[in-house]
Amino acid sequence: MLNKQNIQVCLVSDLFSNYSLSKKSIVVVVDLLRATSVISTAFHYGIKEIIPVSSLEEAKDYLGLENTIVAAERNAEPIEGFEYGNSPFQYMNSNIINKRLVLTTTNGTKAINKAKNFQVITSSFINIESVIKYLASLENDILVLCSGWKGVFNLEDSIFAGHLVYHLNKIKELNINCDSVLASLELYNNAKNDYFKFLENSAHRKRLKHLNIEKDTLFCLNPDIKSEIIPTLKEGKLIRMN
Amino acid sequence: MLNKQNIQVCLVSDLFSNYSLSKKSIVVVVDLLRATSVISTAFHYGIKEIIPVSSLEEAKDYLGLENTIVAAERNAEPIEGFEYGNSPFQYMNSNIINKRLVLTTTNGTKAINKAKNFQVITSSFINIESVIKYLASLENDILVLCSGWKGVFNLEDSIFAGHLVYHLNKIKELNINCDSVLASLELYNNAKNDYFKFLENSAHRKRLKHLNIEKDTLFCLNPDIKSEIIPTLKEGKLIRMN
Repeated sequence: MLNKQNIQVCLVSDLFSNYSLSKKSIVVVVDLLRATSVISTAFHYGIKEIIPVSSLEEAKDYLGLENTIVAAERNAEPIEGFEYGNSPFQYMNSNIINKRLVLTTTNGTKAINKAKNFQVITSSFINIESVIKYLASLENDILVLCSGWKGVFNLEDSIFAGHLVYHLNKIKELNINCDSVLASLELYNNAKNDYFKFLENSAHRKRLKHLNIEKDTLFCLNPDIKSEIIPTLKEGKLIRMN
Repeated sequence: MLNKQNIQVCLVSDLFSNYSLSKKSIVVVVDLLRATSVISTAFHYGIKEIIPVSSLEEAKDYLGLENTIVAAERNAEPIEGFEYGNSPFQYMNSNIINKRLVLTTTNGTKAINKAKNFQVITSSFINIESVIKYLASLENDILVLCSGWKGVFNLEDSIFAGHLVYHLNKIKELNINCDSVLASLELYNNAKNDYFKFLENSAHRKRLKHLNIEKDTLFCLNPDIKSEIIPTLKEGKLIRMN
Protein backbone atom coordinates (compact mmCIF):
# COMPACT_ATOMS: atom_id res chain seq x y z
CA MET A 1 0.00 0.00 0.00
CA LEU A 2 2.77 2.41 0.83
CA ASN A 3 4.38 2.03 -2.55
CA LYS A 4 1.51 3.01 -4.74
CA GLN A 5 2.46 5.49 -7.41
CA ASN A 6 1.46 9.00 -6.40
CA ILE A 7 -0.44 11.15 -8.86
CA GLN A 8 -1.33 14.84 -8.77
CA VAL A 9 -2.98 17.20 -11.23
CA CYS A 10 -2.08 20.86 -11.49
CA LEU A 11 -5.11 22.56 -13.05
CA VAL A 12 -3.35 25.72 -14.24
CA SER A 13 0.35 25.99 -15.07
CA ASP A 14 0.70 29.19 -13.00
CA LEU A 15 0.22 27.02 -9.88
CA PHE A 16 3.02 24.61 -10.79
CA SER A 17 5.52 26.02 -8.31
CA ASN A 18 3.07 25.35 -5.44
CA TYR A 19 3.35 21.58 -5.90
CA SER A 20 5.79 19.36 -4.04
CA LEU A 21 7.59 17.13 -6.48
CA SER A 22 10.49 14.79 -6.03
CA LYS A 23 13.49 14.87 -8.32
CA LYS A 24 12.23 11.74 -10.03
CA SER A 25 8.73 13.06 -10.65
CA ILE A 26 7.48 12.93 -14.18
CA VAL A 27 5.43 15.85 -15.49
CA VAL A 28 2.87 15.20 -18.23
CA VAL A 29 2.12 18.50 -19.94
CA VAL A 30 -1.21 18.93 -21.69
CA ASP A 31 -2.53 21.80 -23.75
CA LEU A 32 -5.18 19.91 -25.62
CA LEU A 33 -6.46 22.87 -27.68
CA ARG A 34 -4.00 22.86 -29.32
CA ALA A 35 -0.26 22.86 -28.53
CA THR A 36 0.25 19.30 -27.30
CA SER A 37 -2.09 18.00 -30.02
CA VAL A 38 0.06 19.85 -32.57
CA ILE A 39 3.20 18.35 -31.02
CA SER A 40 1.79 14.81 -31.31
CA THR A 41 0.66 15.47 -34.88
CA ALA A 42 4.01 16.89 -35.95
CA PHE A 43 5.91 13.89 -34.56
CA HIS A 44 3.43 11.53 -36.18
CA TYR A 45 4.06 13.17 -39.56
CA GLY A 46 7.81 13.02 -39.24
CA ILE A 47 9.19 16.06 -37.47
CA LYS A 48 12.60 15.30 -35.93
CA GLU A 49 12.52 17.54 -32.86
CA ILE A 50 10.56 20.43 -31.41
CA ILE A 51 11.96 23.41 -29.54
CA PRO A 52 9.25 24.93 -27.35
CA VAL A 53 10.00 28.59 -26.73
CA SER A 54 8.09 30.97 -24.50
CA SER A 55 8.38 34.26 -26.39
CA LEU A 56 7.84 35.43 -29.95
CA GLU A 57 11.29 37.08 -29.82
CA GLU A 58 13.02 33.77 -29.13
CA ALA A 59 11.07 32.16 -31.96
CA LYS A 60 12.06 34.92 -34.39
CA ASP A 61 15.74 34.09 -33.88
CA TYR A 62 15.15 30.80 -35.69
CA LEU A 63 13.44 32.27 -38.77
CA GLY A 64 15.29 31.48 -42.02
CA LEU A 65 17.49 28.73 -40.56
CA GLU A 66 17.95 25.58 -42.63
CA ASN A 67 15.65 22.61 -42.00
CA THR A 68 13.70 24.63 -39.48
CA ILE A 69 10.01 25.42 -39.33
CA VAL A 70 9.04 28.25 -37.03
CA ALA A 71 5.48 28.37 -35.71
CA ALA A 72 3.78 30.94 -33.54
CA GLU A 73 0.35 31.47 -32.10
CA ARG A 74 -1.12 33.97 -29.69
CA ASN A 75 -4.75 34.14 -28.55
CA ALA A 76 -5.62 31.24 -30.89
CA GLU A 77 -4.44 33.13 -33.99
CA PRO A 78 -1.33 32.67 -36.14
CA ILE A 79 1.23 35.48 -36.09
CA GLU A 80 2.28 37.44 -39.16
CA GLY A 81 5.77 36.60 -40.32
CA PHE A 82 5.63 32.97 -39.22
CA GLU A 83 5.06 30.15 -41.69
CA TYR A 84 3.12 27.90 -39.35
CA GLY A 85 0.53 28.40 -36.64
CA ASN A 86 -1.09 26.16 -34.06
CA SER A 87 -3.43 24.08 -36.22
CA PRO A 88 -2.65 20.35 -36.32
CA PHE A 89 -3.76 20.19 -39.96
CA GLN A 90 -0.83 22.36 -41.04
CA TYR A 91 1.55 19.61 -39.94
CA MET A 92 -0.03 16.85 -41.99
CA ASN A 93 2.37 17.13 -44.91
CA SER A 94 5.64 15.60 -46.02
CA ASN A 95 7.41 18.94 -45.93
CA ILE A 96 7.99 18.57 -42.20
CA ILE A 97 9.84 15.24 -42.37
CA ASN A 98 13.14 15.30 -40.48
CA LYS A 99 12.92 19.00 -39.84
CA ARG A 100 13.05 20.76 -36.55
CA LEU A 101 10.05 22.75 -35.36
CA VAL A 102 10.37 25.85 -33.20
CA LEU A 103 7.02 26.45 -31.54
CA THR A 104 5.66 29.22 -29.36
CA THR A 105 2.03 29.26 -28.23
CA THR A 106 -0.08 31.19 -25.73
CA ASN A 107 -0.03 28.55 -23.01
CA GLY A 108 1.38 25.13 -23.86
CA THR A 109 4.99 25.95 -24.61
CA LYS A 110 5.15 28.08 -21.46
CA ALA A 111 3.88 25.18 -19.37
CA ILE A 112 6.56 22.90 -20.84
CA ASN A 113 9.26 25.38 -19.94
CA LYS A 114 7.93 25.82 -16.39
CA ALA A 115 8.47 22.11 -15.77
CA LYS A 116 11.87 21.85 -17.43
CA ASN A 117 13.73 20.88 -14.25
CA PHE A 118 11.78 17.60 -14.13
CA GLN A 119 11.28 14.79 -16.61
CA VAL A 120 8.71 16.24 -19.02
CA ILE A 121 6.58 14.42 -21.56
CA THR A 122 3.66 15.82 -23.55
CA SER A 123 0.31 14.21 -24.15
CA SER A 124 -2.87 14.60 -26.18
CA PHE A 125 -5.62 12.24 -27.29
CA ILE A 126 -3.32 11.25 -30.17
CA ASN A 127 -0.74 9.54 -27.95
CA ILE A 128 -2.68 9.06 -24.69
CA GLU A 129 -2.73 5.27 -24.88
CA SER A 130 1.04 5.05 -25.18
CA VAL A 131 1.50 7.62 -22.45
CA ILE A 132 -0.71 5.63 -20.07
CA LYS A 133 1.22 2.42 -20.80
CA TYR A 134 4.49 4.22 -20.25
CA LEU A 135 3.37 5.76 -16.95
CA ALA A 136 2.06 2.40 -15.75
CA SER A 137 5.52 0.90 -16.37
CA LEU A 138 7.17 3.36 -13.97
CA GLU A 139 7.35 3.80 -10.21
CA ASN A 140 7.89 7.56 -10.40
CA ASP A 141 5.42 10.06 -9.01
CA ILE A 142 3.35 11.78 -11.67
CA LEU A 143 2.02 15.29 -12.07
CA VAL A 144 -0.35 16.07 -14.93
CA LEU A 145 0.24 19.72 -15.75
CA CYS A 146 -2.76 21.38 -17.40
CA SER A 147 -1.70 24.48 -19.29
CA GLY A 148 -4.92 26.39 -18.78
CA TRP A 149 -5.57 29.64 -20.64
CA LYS A 150 -3.52 32.71 -19.73
CA GLY A 151 -3.28 31.74 -16.12
CA VAL A 152 -6.84 30.58 -15.64
CA PHE A 153 -8.46 27.17 -15.54
CA ASN A 154 -9.87 25.51 -18.64
CA LEU A 155 -12.20 22.55 -18.95
CA GLU A 156 -10.58 20.65 -21.80
CA ASP A 157 -7.21 20.11 -20.12
CA SER A 158 -8.83 18.98 -16.86
CA ILE A 159 -11.11 16.52 -18.64
CA PHE A 160 -8.05 15.14 -20.38
CA ALA A 161 -6.28 14.84 -17.01
CA GLY A 162 -9.28 12.94 -15.62
CA HIS A 163 -9.33 10.62 -18.64
CA LEU A 164 -5.64 9.88 -18.19
CA VAL A 165 -5.88 9.27 -14.43
CA TYR A 166 -9.00 7.13 -14.75
CA HIS A 167 -7.45 4.77 -17.29
CA LEU A 168 -4.06 4.63 -15.61
CA ASN A 169 -5.73 3.83 -12.29
CA LYS A 170 -7.58 0.94 -13.94
CA ILE A 171 -4.25 -0.62 -14.93
CA LYS A 172 -2.52 0.08 -11.65
CA GLU A 173 -4.09 1.51 -8.51
CA LEU A 174 -2.68 4.94 -7.80
CA ASN A 175 -2.22 6.90 -4.61
CA ILE A 176 -4.55 9.88 -4.89
CA ASN A 177 -4.26 12.59 -2.30
CA CYS A 178 -4.97 15.62 -4.41
CA ASP A 179 -8.32 17.36 -4.83
CA SER A 180 -7.46 18.37 -8.40
CA VAL A 181 -7.26 14.69 -9.31
CA LEU A 182 -10.68 14.08 -7.74
CA ALA A 183 -12.17 17.07 -9.56
CA SER A 184 -10.65 15.97 -12.87
CA LEU A 185 -12.14 12.51 -12.44
CA GLU A 186 -15.58 14.00 -11.76
CA LEU A 187 -15.36 16.26 -14.79
CA TYR A 188 -14.12 13.41 -16.98
CA ASN A 189 -17.01 11.26 -15.82
CA ASN A 190 -19.54 13.97 -16.65
CA ALA A 191 -17.95 14.63 -20.03
CA LYS A 192 -16.89 11.21 -21.28
CA ASN A 193 -19.92 10.41 -23.41
CA ASP A 194 -19.38 13.40 -25.65
CA TYR A 195 -16.46 15.72 -25.04
CA PHE A 196 -17.43 18.04 -27.86
CA LYS A 197 -20.93 18.55 -26.52
CA PHE A 198 -19.71 18.85 -22.93
CA LEU A 199 -17.37 21.64 -23.97
CA GLU A 200 -20.05 23.48 -25.92
CA ASN A 201 -20.10 26.42 -23.51
CA SER A 202 -16.43 26.34 -22.65
CA ALA A 203 -14.46 29.49 -23.20
CA HIS A 204 -11.97 28.00 -25.64
CA ARG A 205 -14.54 26.25 -27.79
CA LYS A 206 -16.30 29.57 -28.15
CA ARG A 207 -12.99 31.22 -28.98
CA LEU A 208 -12.12 28.69 -31.70
CA LYS A 209 -15.68 28.72 -33.06
CA HIS A 210 -15.44 32.45 -33.41
CA LEU A 211 -12.24 31.95 -35.41
CA ASN A 212 -13.91 29.30 -37.60
CA ILE A 213 -11.53 26.57 -36.58
CA GLU A 214 -13.97 24.22 -34.97
CA LYS A 215 -12.46 21.54 -37.21
CA ASP A 216 -9.32 21.73 -35.06
CA THR A 217 -11.35 21.26 -31.88
CA LEU A 218 -13.10 18.19 -33.29
CA PHE A 219 -9.76 16.72 -34.31
CA CYS A 220 -8.04 17.37 -30.97
CA LEU A 221 -10.92 15.87 -28.98
CA ASN A 222 -11.33 12.84 -31.21
CA PRO A 223 -8.30 12.51 -33.49
CA ASP A 224 -8.35 10.07 -36.38
CA ILE A 225 -4.64 9.39 -35.96
CA LYS A 226 -3.03 7.50 -33.10
CA SER A 227 0.63 7.83 -32.27
CA GLU A 228 2.92 5.77 -30.09
CA ILE A 229 5.45 8.55 -29.92
CA ILE A 230 5.98 10.07 -26.50
CA PRO A 231 7.63 13.48 -26.86
CA THR A 232 10.11 14.03 -24.05
CA LEU A 233 12.13 17.10 -23.14
CA LYS A 234 15.92 16.76 -23.32
CA GLU A 235 18.11 19.83 -23.04
CA GLY A 236 15.35 22.18 -24.08
CA LYS A 237 14.15 20.07 -27.02
CA LEU A 238 11.25 17.70 -27.35
CA ILE A 239 12.46 14.49 -28.95
CA ARG A 240 10.91 11.06 -29.46
CA MET A 241 11.32 8.86 -26.45
CA ASN A 242 10.67 5.78 -28.55
CA MET B 1 -28.90 40.20 -23.08
CA LEU B 2 -25.87 42.46 -23.04
CA ASN B 3 -26.52 43.58 -19.52
CA LYS B 4 -26.54 40.26 -17.76
CA GLN B 5 -24.45 40.25 -14.64
CA ASN B 6 -21.08 38.65 -15.31
CA ILE B 7 -19.83 35.97 -12.94
CA GLN B 8 -16.43 34.31 -12.64
CA VAL B 9 -14.93 31.82 -10.22
CA CYS B 10 -11.27 31.84 -9.25
CA LEU B 11 -10.50 28.31 -8.05
CA VAL B 12 -7.33 29.13 -6.11
CA SER B 13 -6.50 32.51 -4.60
CA ASP B 14 -2.98 32.44 -6.07
CA LEU B 15 -4.59 32.92 -9.50
CA PHE B 16 -6.54 36.01 -8.45
CA SER B 17 -4.24 38.48 -10.21
CA ASN B 18 -4.84 36.69 -13.54
CA TYR B 19 -8.50 37.73 -13.58
CA SER B 20 -9.82 40.86 -15.27
CA LEU B 21 -12.08 42.73 -12.91
CA SER B 22 -13.69 46.12 -13.15
CA LYS B 23 -13.44 48.65 -10.34
CA LYS B 24 -17.03 47.86 -9.38
CA SER B 25 -16.53 44.11 -9.23
CA ILE B 26 -17.55 42.41 -6.03
CA VAL B 27 -15.37 39.60 -4.72
CA VAL B 28 -17.00 36.87 -2.63
CA VAL B 29 -14.27 35.15 -0.62
CA VAL B 30 -14.82 31.59 0.51
CA ASP B 31 -12.68 29.37 2.70
CA LEU B 32 -15.36 26.97 3.76
CA LEU B 33 -13.13 24.77 5.96
CA ARG B 34 -12.95 26.90 8.01
CA ALA B 35 -12.09 30.62 7.92
CA THR B 36 -15.20 32.07 6.29
CA SER B 37 -17.40 29.71 8.33
CA VAL B 38 -15.66 30.99 11.46
CA ILE B 39 -16.22 34.58 10.31
CA SER B 40 -19.96 33.96 9.83
CA THR B 41 -20.19 32.20 13.19
CA ALA B 42 -18.37 34.95 15.06
CA PHE B 43 -20.62 37.65 13.61
CA HIS B 44 -23.68 35.55 14.39
CA TYR B 45 -22.60 35.29 18.03
CA GLY B 46 -21.97 39.00 18.37
CA ILE B 47 -18.44 39.90 17.37
CA LYS B 48 -18.22 43.57 16.38
CA GLU B 49 -15.53 43.47 13.72
CA ILE B 50 -12.85 41.15 12.36
CA ILE B 51 -9.38 42.13 11.24
CA PRO B 52 -8.04 39.51 8.83
CA VAL B 53 -4.25 39.50 8.89
CA SER B 54 -1.93 37.46 6.72
CA SER B 55 0.97 36.73 9.09
CA LEU B 56 1.35 35.44 12.63
CA GLU B 57 3.63 38.40 13.36
CA GLU B 58 0.90 40.90 12.54
CA ALA B 59 -1.55 38.94 14.70
CA LYS B 60 0.87 38.95 17.65
CA ASP B 61 0.87 42.76 17.69
CA TYR B 62 -2.74 42.64 18.87
CA LEU B 63 -2.22 40.22 21.77
CA GLY B 64 -3.23 41.69 25.13
CA LEU B 65 -5.18 44.63 23.72
CA GLU B 66 -8.50 45.46 25.36
CA ASN B 67 -11.70 44.01 23.91
CA THR B 68 -9.68 42.05 21.41
CA ILE B 69 -9.59 38.33 20.69
CA VAL B 70 -6.63 37.12 18.69
CA ALA B 71 -6.97 33.86 16.77
CA ALA B 72 -4.44 31.97 14.71
CA GLU B 73 -4.33 28.76 12.76
CA ARG B 74 -1.77 27.15 10.51
CA ASN B 75 -2.11 23.78 8.78
CA ALA B 76 -5.49 23.24 10.47
CA GLU B 77 -4.01 23.51 13.97
CA PRO B 78 -4.24 26.27 16.55
CA ILE B 79 -1.03 28.12 17.38
CA GLU B 80 0.50 28.26 20.85
CA GLY B 81 0.17 31.62 22.50
CA PHE B 82 -3.16 32.46 20.88
CA GLU B 83 -6.44 32.18 22.77
CA TYR B 84 -8.53 31.16 19.80
CA GLY B 85 -8.07 28.96 16.75
CA ASN B 86 -10.07 28.27 13.63
CA SER B 87 -12.92 26.15 14.98
CA PRO B 88 -16.39 27.71 14.68
CA PHE B 89 -17.42 26.13 18.01
CA GLN B 90 -14.95 28.33 19.90
CA TYR B 91 -16.93 31.39 18.88
CA MET B 92 -20.28 30.18 20.17
CA ASN B 93 -20.09 31.99 23.48
CA SER B 94 -21.12 35.30 24.94
CA ASN B 95 -17.55 36.29 25.68
CA ILE B 96 -17.10 37.49 22.11
CA ILE B 97 -20.01 39.99 22.12
CA ASN B 98 -18.98 43.44 20.90
CA LYS B 99 -15.32 42.50 20.79
CA ARG B 100 -12.99 42.72 17.88
CA LEU B 101 -11.44 39.56 16.46
CA VAL B 102 -8.00 39.51 14.87
CA LEU B 103 -7.77 36.39 12.71
CA THR B 104 -4.95 34.79 10.74
CA THR B 105 -5.43 31.45 8.98
CA THR B 106 -3.53 29.37 6.44
CA ASN B 107 -5.56 30.40 3.43
CA GLY B 108 -8.74 32.39 4.01
CA THR B 109 -7.40 35.58 5.53
CA LYS B 110 -4.72 35.73 2.80
CA ALA B 111 -7.39 35.45 0.11
CA ILE B 112 -9.34 38.32 1.71
CA ASN B 113 -6.26 40.50 1.69
CA LYS B 114 -5.44 39.66 -1.94
CA ALA B 115 -8.80 41.09 -2.98
CA LYS B 116 -8.70 44.17 -0.78
CA ASN B 117 -8.69 46.66 -3.67
CA PHE B 118 -12.20 45.52 -4.63
CA GLN B 119 -15.46 45.30 -2.72
CA VAL B 120 -15.00 42.14 -0.64
CA ILE B 121 -17.64 40.11 1.17
CA THR B 122 -17.20 36.68 2.76
CA SER B 123 -19.52 33.74 2.51
CA SER B 124 -20.13 30.28 3.94
CA PHE B 125 -23.14 28.00 4.19
CA ILE B 126 -24.17 30.00 7.26
CA ASN B 127 -24.93 33.19 5.31
CA ILE B 128 -25.18 31.92 1.72
CA GLU B 129 -28.88 32.69 1.35
CA SER B 130 -28.40 36.31 2.32
CA VAL B 131 -25.33 36.60 0.12
CA ILE B 132 -27.25 35.26 -2.89
CA LYS B 133 -30.11 37.72 -2.30
CA TYR B 134 -27.64 40.56 -1.97
CA LEU B 135 -25.77 39.64 -5.16
CA ALA B 136 -29.04 39.31 -7.05
CA SER B 137 -29.92 42.87 -6.03
CA LEU B 138 -26.78 44.27 -7.71
CA GLU B 139 -25.66 44.91 -11.26
CA ASN B 140 -21.95 44.56 -10.44
CA ASP B 141 -19.75 41.84 -11.87
CA ILE B 142 -19.00 39.07 -9.41
CA LEU B 143 -15.96 36.93 -8.75
CA VAL B 144 -16.18 34.06 -6.30
CA LEU B 145 -12.70 33.69 -4.85
CA CYS B 146 -11.98 30.19 -3.56
CA SER B 147 -9.13 30.24 -1.09
CA GLY B 148 -7.81 26.79 -1.91
CA TRP B 149 -5.16 25.17 0.26
CA LYS B 150 -1.64 26.61 0.21
CA GLY B 151 -1.87 27.59 -3.41
CA VAL B 152 -3.58 24.47 -4.68
CA PHE B 153 -7.17 23.68 -5.59
CA ASN B 154 -9.62 22.24 -3.07
CA LEU B 155 -12.98 20.60 -3.63
CA GLU B 156 -15.00 22.17 -0.84
CA ASP B 157 -14.56 25.77 -1.94
CA SER B 158 -15.36 24.95 -5.56
CA ILE B 159 -18.51 23.04 -4.61
CA PHE B 160 -19.56 26.03 -2.56
CA ALA B 161 -18.90 28.30 -5.56
CA GLY B 162 -21.05 26.03 -7.73
CA HIS B 163 -23.85 26.07 -5.15
CA LEU B 164 -23.77 29.85 -5.02
CA VAL B 165 -23.72 30.31 -8.81
CA TYR B 166 -26.45 27.73 -9.37
CA HIS B 167 -28.88 29.36 -6.96
CA LEU B 168 -28.04 32.92 -7.99
CA ASN B 169 -28.55 31.98 -11.64
CA LYS B 170 -31.99 30.61 -10.82
CA ILE B 171 -33.03 34.02 -9.47
CA LYS B 172 -31.43 36.01 -12.24
CA GLU B 173 -29.77 34.65 -15.37
CA LEU B 174 -26.06 35.36 -15.29
CA ASN B 175 -23.50 35.85 -18.02
CA ILE B 176 -21.12 32.90 -17.75
CA ASN B 177 -17.98 32.95 -19.84
CA CYS B 178 -15.58 31.26 -17.46
CA ASP B 179 -14.63 27.59 -17.41
CA SER B 180 -14.15 27.65 -13.64
CA VAL B 181 -17.82 28.53 -13.25
CA LEU B 182 -18.80 25.62 -15.49
CA ALA B 183 -16.53 23.23 -13.57
CA SER B 184 -17.89 24.45 -10.22
CA LEU B 185 -21.44 23.86 -11.41
CA GLU B 186 -20.55 20.31 -12.50
CA LEU B 187 -18.89 19.57 -9.16
CA TYR B 188 -21.79 21.07 -7.23
CA ASN B 189 -24.22 18.95 -9.21
CA ASN B 190 -22.26 15.77 -8.47
CA ALA B 191 -21.93 16.67 -4.79
CA LYS B 192 -25.25 18.26 -3.91
CA ASN B 193 -27.01 15.21 -2.50
CA ASP B 194 -24.43 14.72 0.21
CA TYR B 195 -21.51 17.11 0.52
CA PHE B 196 -19.97 15.25 3.41
CA LYS B 197 -19.91 11.96 1.54
CA PHE B 198 -18.73 13.60 -1.68
CA LEU B 199 -15.79 15.09 0.17
CA GLU B 200 -14.89 11.81 1.84
CA ASN B 201 -11.63 11.46 -0.06
CA SER B 202 -10.84 15.14 -0.25
CA ALA B 203 -7.50 16.25 1.09
CA HIS B 204 -8.90 18.63 3.71
CA ARG B 205 -11.49 16.25 5.07
CA LYS B 206 -8.69 13.75 5.59
CA ARG B 207 -6.62 16.46 7.23
CA LEU B 208 -9.37 17.45 9.68
CA LYS B 209 -10.27 13.80 10.33
CA HIS B 210 -6.70 13.18 11.26
CA LEU B 211 -6.91 16.06 13.72
CA ASN B 212 -10.20 14.72 15.14
CA ILE B 213 -12.17 17.76 14.19
CA GLU B 214 -14.62 16.16 11.86
CA LYS B 215 -17.32 17.86 13.92
CA ASP B 216 -16.13 21.17 12.43
CA THR B 217 -16.40 19.78 8.90
CA LEU B 218 -19.95 18.58 9.51
CA PHE B 219 -20.91 21.97 10.90
CA CYS B 220 -19.33 23.97 8.06
CA LEU B 221 -20.98 21.82 5.39
CA ASN B 222 -24.38 21.78 7.02
CA PRO B 223 -24.54 24.42 9.74
CA ASP B 224 -27.44 24.50 12.19
CA ILE B 225 -27.28 28.27 12.37
CA LYS B 226 -28.26 30.68 9.61
CA SER B 227 -27.08 34.25 9.54
CA GLU B 228 -28.24 37.24 7.53
CA ILE B 229 -25.03 39.08 8.23
CA ILE B 230 -22.84 39.77 5.22
CA PRO B 231 -19.31 40.55 6.38
CA THR B 232 -17.78 43.22 4.17
CA LEU B 233 -14.27 44.63 4.12
CA LYS B 234 -13.90 48.34 4.94
CA GLU B 235 -10.45 49.80 5.53
CA GLY B 236 -8.92 46.46 6.36
CA LYS B 237 -11.72 45.34 8.70
CA LEU B 238 -14.63 43.02 8.13
CA ILE B 239 -17.76 44.66 9.44
CA ARG B 240 -21.46 43.85 9.15
CA MET B 241 -22.95 45.19 5.98
CA ASN B 242 -26.43 44.94 7.45
